[in-house]
Amino acid sequence: MKKALVVGVLSLGSALLMSAGKSEDAKLLEEARKYFKPLPEVAQSKTNPVTPEKVELGKMLYYDPRLSKSGLISCNTCHNLATYGVDNLPTSVGHRWQLGPRNAPTTLNAALHVAQFWDGRAKDVEEQAKGPILNPIEMAMDSPEEVIKRLRSIPQYVELFKKAFPNEKDPLTYDNVAKAIAAFERTLMTPSRFDKFLKGDLNALTKKEKEGLKLFMQIGCASCHNGPALGGTTFQRFGIVEAYWNATREYVTLDKPTMPMDVGRFAVTHKEEDLYVFKVPSLRNISRTYPYFHDGSVWNLEDAVQIMAKVQLGKKLSKDQLDKIVAFLKALDGEIPKHALELPVLPPSSPATPKPQR
Amino acid sequence: MKKALVVGVLSLGSALLMSAGKSEDAKLLEEARKYFKPLPEVAQSKTNPVTPEKVELGKMLYYDPRLSKSGLISCNTCHNLATYGVDNLPTSVGHRWQLGPRNAPTTLNAALHVAQFWDGRAKDVEEQAKGPILNPIEMAMDSPEEVIKRLRSIPQYVELFKKAFPNEKDPLTYDNVAKAIAAFERTLMTPSRFDKFLKGDLNALTKKEKEGLKLFMQIGCASCHNGPALGGTTFQRFGIVEAYWNATREYVTLDKPTMPMDVGRFAVTHKEEDLYVFKVPSLRNISRTYPYFHDGSVWNLEDAVQIMAKVQLGKKLSKDQLDKIVAFLKALDGEIPKHALELPVLPPSSPATPKPQR
Repeated sequence: MKKALVVGVLSLGSALLMSAGKSEDAKLLEEARKYFKPLPEVAQSKTNPVTPEKVELGKMLYYDPRLSKSGLISCNTCHNLATYGVDNLPTSVGHRWQLGPRNAPTTLNAALHVAQFWDGRAKDVEEQAKGPILNPIEMAMDSPEEVIKRLRSIPQYVELFKKAFPNEKDPLTYDNVAKAIAAFERTLMTPSRFDKFLKGDLNALTKKEKEGLKLFMQIGCASCHNGPALGGTTFQRFGIVEAYWNATREYVTLDKPTMPMDVGRFAVTHKEEDLYVFKVPSLRNISRTYPYFHDGSVWNLEDAVQIMAKVQLGKKLSKDQLDKIVAFLKALDGEIPKHALELPVLPPSSPATPKPQR
Repeated sequence: MKKALVVGVLSLGSALLMSAGKSEDAKLLEEARKYFKPLPEVAQSKTNPVTPEKVELGKMLYYDPRLSKSGLISCNTCHNLATYGVDNLPTSVGHRWQLGPRNAPTTLNAALHVAQFWDGRAKDVEEQAKGPILNPIEMAMDSPEEVIKRLRSIPQYVELFKKAFPNEKDPLTYDNVAKAIAAFERTLMTPSRFDKFLKGDLNALTKKEKEGLKLFMQIGCASCHNGPALGGTTFQRFGIVEAYWNATREYVTLDKPTMPMDVGRFAVTHKEEDLYVFKVPSLRNISRTYPYFHDGSVWNLEDAVQIMAKVQLGKKLSKDQLDKIVAFLKALDGEIPKHALELPVLPPSSPATPKPQR
């Protein structure tokens, strides 16, 4: 009788404990849902509805080096989908090996952001796509007309633009080049185990990752790195508590181009409060999109997290806290959509196609 | 009765005509089989047997820019599988935008060739793969040890080398890097309608293409451009009847680097008879692998064919002959294997991975 009672009490106890455990996870999920959302399947747009024809055309353009003056550089060169939409370089290399000033952000999930580029100067991916093609230190095309001239000389492209923009009299425009690329990018959503968790699967994250998530919210990371992309929702100063370069200075190497301090969004708005303000980057796939920060100065994720804690929040993380947060961040690694990894076979140029200029 | 007789005679007549037509095609096929063979499914090797593990690893390495000093250039940069294994540039662009002296040959079907590079200095694709990685004007890695250092710092690569070379004590060697890439390249076979014809489908080519094939053999093109790759079987002087630059000179633009006349295989053998001798290139996918010749000086396929007729055979083709030959050449456009177009997701670097140097 006594034994049965003991067993009964133990069972009840462990049941209570288990339900308390479940309740912890459920509470964590409830808290997380205040800050984060799972990824949509496609980042839809009212002004540029995503259609299969646009996505097919956009993918070809994304991978086509003829959108660059030299005929060598494509969107995929710096936003390489084999490496999570980045080039894993501090800053990118462009036409004639000119080195850019900023780290190439990933195109994965980028369409969800409130604006594009580190300084938010483009309002959406449709506007962003027009930039690098014409930037003299990036793809260096001389003008939108030169881009259209090249594409118009390729019969298959002419057909594909008609298919993708069927109700337009003259569909082969620079706007539509950008819209097609953007439509493709809107499909670059990379769901992860964290999304499964957010959708209710309490076992999708390990215990350590859940502890990391809890710290991520408690310590203050989530006050900026929130939303479906865990970033991209606001602009913030890099270096709130202290100047960021106090912490990143030691990581700057001779390899980097000598240049004035990057003033961030100030260059766009000219408001003093925007000095060293940047769009908060997305933390999805962060373990793959090194090196970090707008200048790509820091390679190590652990270092980047400590720097953020220091200059943004005035905190120093213990080794244990750091480990857990990094474990959580790695749970944000997502699945790159299969269609995005299928290289398109590009249509051949014609004798009318203007030649590349190296 | 008369009507039946007429119908009977007409039927017999057309049957005879049809069989005479079939016989023409059958004769053409018989003749073609003396010069050409259909592509194998894989270009097998006794010394480097192709296995799925090697191919998977080789594909990753082929697409991995960390095999270059800058971390920007991969095999796929110049041998872009989205554009039939070439970069469609006169000569390639390498580290720090240095311009190479020769046109990048396609990796498609290359494993079938008797040797690699325009001057045949590598005996097979296993030897070829070692070249560009270390070439200071191409991928510019400082040494094989530097390549291995990078790969060894990436745990997934260490595992993949063990899987691909299971009976070796230390599988992560530069030789094996090349063997893996070569194994992948051995699967880059691109069967075309011409292969269907060679396998017996007399209707796989159009009438015009068959006439082009006939001319191709009659005129003398097939005396050099033969074998399964329609090329790659011998070395020949470019400019047999007259100096080739008599014909290509007008196509040379200011864009091209100033350099001494390319002496071809002479630079390898130092034999006078090898002056301006090059490996005969493959004509498979030729309509996609412009611009043409070792220096990539000629963009237009029709022009290239006329130049060949002139300087190799001392002939001038009529417009009709040219049209037919070019139609046949276009029938050599093949299917790029699906697996080759599936971009691999590359493993991340580790803190131990040596940094790129731009």
